[in-house]
Amino acid sequence: MTADSRWLEDDLRPIDTRAAEAARARQDTLTKPRGSLGDLEMLAIRLAGWQRSERPGMERVHITVFAGDHGIAAEGVSAFPQAVTTEMLRNFARGGAAISVLARSLGATFEVVNLGTVSPITGGVHDRWLGAGTESFMRHAAMSEVQLTAALDAGRQSVERAIAMEAQLYIGGEIGIGNTTAAAALACALLPAEPEVLAGPGTGLDAAGVVHKAAVIRRALEHHAGALGGAAEVLRRLGGFEIAALAGAYVRCAQAGLPAMIDGFIATAAALIAARLRPGVESWWLFSHRSREPGHAALLAALQARPLLDLGMRLGEGSGAAAAVPLLRLACELHGRMATFAQAGVSERI
Amino acid sequence: MTADSRWLEDDLRPIDTRAAEAARARQDTLTKPRGSLGDLEMLAIRLAGWQRSERPGMERVHITVFAGDHGIAAEGVSAFPQAVTTEMLRNFARGGAAISVLARSLGATFEVVNLGTVSPITGGVHDRWLGAGTESFMRHAAMSEVQLTAALDAGRQSVERAIAMEAQLYIGGEIGIGNTTAAAALACALLPAEPEVLAGPGTGLDAAGVVHKAAVIRRALEHHAGALGGAAEVLRRLGGFEIAALAGAYVRCAQAGLPAMIDGFIATAAALIAARLRPGVESWWLFSHRSREPGHAALLAALQARPLLDLGMRLGEGSGAAAAVPLLRLACELHGRMATFAQAGVSERI
Repeated sequence: MTADSRWLEDDLRPIDTRAAEAARARQDTLTKPRGSLGDLEMLAIRLAGWQRSERPGMERVHITVFAGDHGIAAEGVSAFPQAVTTEMLRNFARGGAAISVLARSLGATFEVVNLGTVSPITGGVHDRWLGAGTESFMRHAAMSEVQLTAALDAGRQSVERAIAMEAQLYIGGEIGIGNTTAAAALACALLPAEPEVLAGPGTGLDAAGVVHKAAVIRRALEHHAGALGGAAEVLRRLGGFEIAALAGAYVRCAQAGLPAMIDGFIATAAALIAARLRPGVESWWLFSHRSREPGHAALLAALQARPLLDLGMRLGEGSGAAAAVPLLRLACELHGRMATFAQAGVSERI
Repeated sequence: MTADSRWLEDDLRPIDTRAAEAARARQDTLTKPRGSLGDLEMLAIRLAGWQRSERPGMERVHITVFAGDHGIAAEGVSAFPQAVTTEMLRNFARGGAAISVLARSLGATFEVVNLGTVSPITGGVHDRWLGAGTESFMRHAAMSEVQLTAALDAGRQSVERAIAMEAQLYIGGEIGIGNTTAAAALACALLPAEPEVLAGPGTGLDAAGVVHKAAVIRRALEHHAGALGGAAEVLRRLGGFEIAALAGAYVRCAQAGLPAMIDGFIATAAALIAARLRPGVESWWLFSHRSREPGHAALLAALQARPLLDLGMRLGEGSGAAAAVPLLRLACELHGRMATFAQAGVSERI
């Protein structure tokens, strides 16, 4: 990476273990059997440690969707044509996409960053255009050093905007026809794992399509074999603009002290990259949901992640992460507003 | 049962399969890969069938918590003293309990119905007091015929109130020290299953306490053996006032056409009773969560239920059902507000 990526080495923000312990102690005074709120207790305690407050809140959520096209789409690895990336960006801007609706419902701040669609788009999106999609990683590196650095930085900047808006949670989403292929390829290189394990239907390939997709990934991995040194180089050769931006955002969240809710397959691949670039960043993350995309399980296992939801979703855009936000809000409400045994005059256990 | 329970035989409301099919067709026009919203699509489609509308909503949720004490508590089957039932009713009324907080957060209408605490309570609750708790089912039937009829009817009446308030979802909760023992006992009789499978820690028994609880249930089942004819008699002999009220409410929901969200272990035991009293009622239910109470899995399996959430909760009160409400709301928002491929000018699959 270039010198402009030195920010990746900035210190990570420590978690306030005293606030987390105070929240844990408070949970044990609330009028319920200890532990009986399950993950809703865990969420309040973790948020307390992140927010440095015994009584955390979850009013302000920021969502950034990163978009980029993929050269690998030319290999016929998607059920949808490449034009859909740009068409969906317009849909995001007009409020008709799933993540647009979810952002409105949650009262979240929402933005779209275009890192490189094949077709241009103006209006309604942050323009950080780095090229007409990545190169096909069948024969080339997907990105140049300069593009990688800029994409990582676009992620960093979106976190800075979230912090400026005093967000309490960061959600990164993605759109880009072909990006489950890129995510599977880089995960195969990093874990390592076989393409046949990590390649899945994406937006809706049939069984033959999935076999073809795995074969494409296998040939690409053979082409790049020997050149896949570290996580950054794996990302540059096999990734995508939006995947790099997510990885950059996840690192910055941990540096800035902003918890991130990780979405599905592609976001988790970006999280794996981030955890390899800067070990320790994962202590600032929550995992939102288990995607139906079959390769997600291997990524979650590698990150020792146990997601909150398992609803058979596989849309991307940050939609699974958004769907988990109400659980955080209920966790904070319960934690902050339930009466203690002493306040309520309720007898404690025998 | 007495003649006053003849309402249990009233017709069940049919589901509007045309509205459900219209909603399914609409889902397939929205700007996302088909099926990619997983259970959020299923929820919108099921709500459409229940609400007889292609575009269902989920603004108005009603929550009733039923309370009753249990004679079986004298056998030392709970980690908390029996006084907690009454103390918690006051906590509900003052807004300090988990379900009180959740109801406020969701903007749900909320009421508590006292069917029979040992200690009296006035103010803040609907008084349908049937006695100072049930009899211990170690040697007696838990309820008389008259009490059973009245408890079932109290459930029916709470559904009538929910309908009068134009609720779109009914949540029943429960409180009653000893009621996991009663729920496990009646489930053992109905499934059938062994007490060692269905008895669990409840509010927090240790391993020895769980062994004792299972032994109590086993002796009680031996005492009542030969007299456990149908579901109503199982409920009368082994159940509790609040369990009977939940069962009555679940039957009435299916008669009145109001979907019910089933909570955890005790609510699911009541649902099992309701399904045995009136097969078919289960088509009006959603299952909210998988409780950490170990016996819940067997009940869910018997009802072929796949809950929405798995958060390790085991509080009761309707808390797990309340935690799932935001998913229904997001499902309705996505279903109603996403753009179609045609509206957004997005290309369909290749």
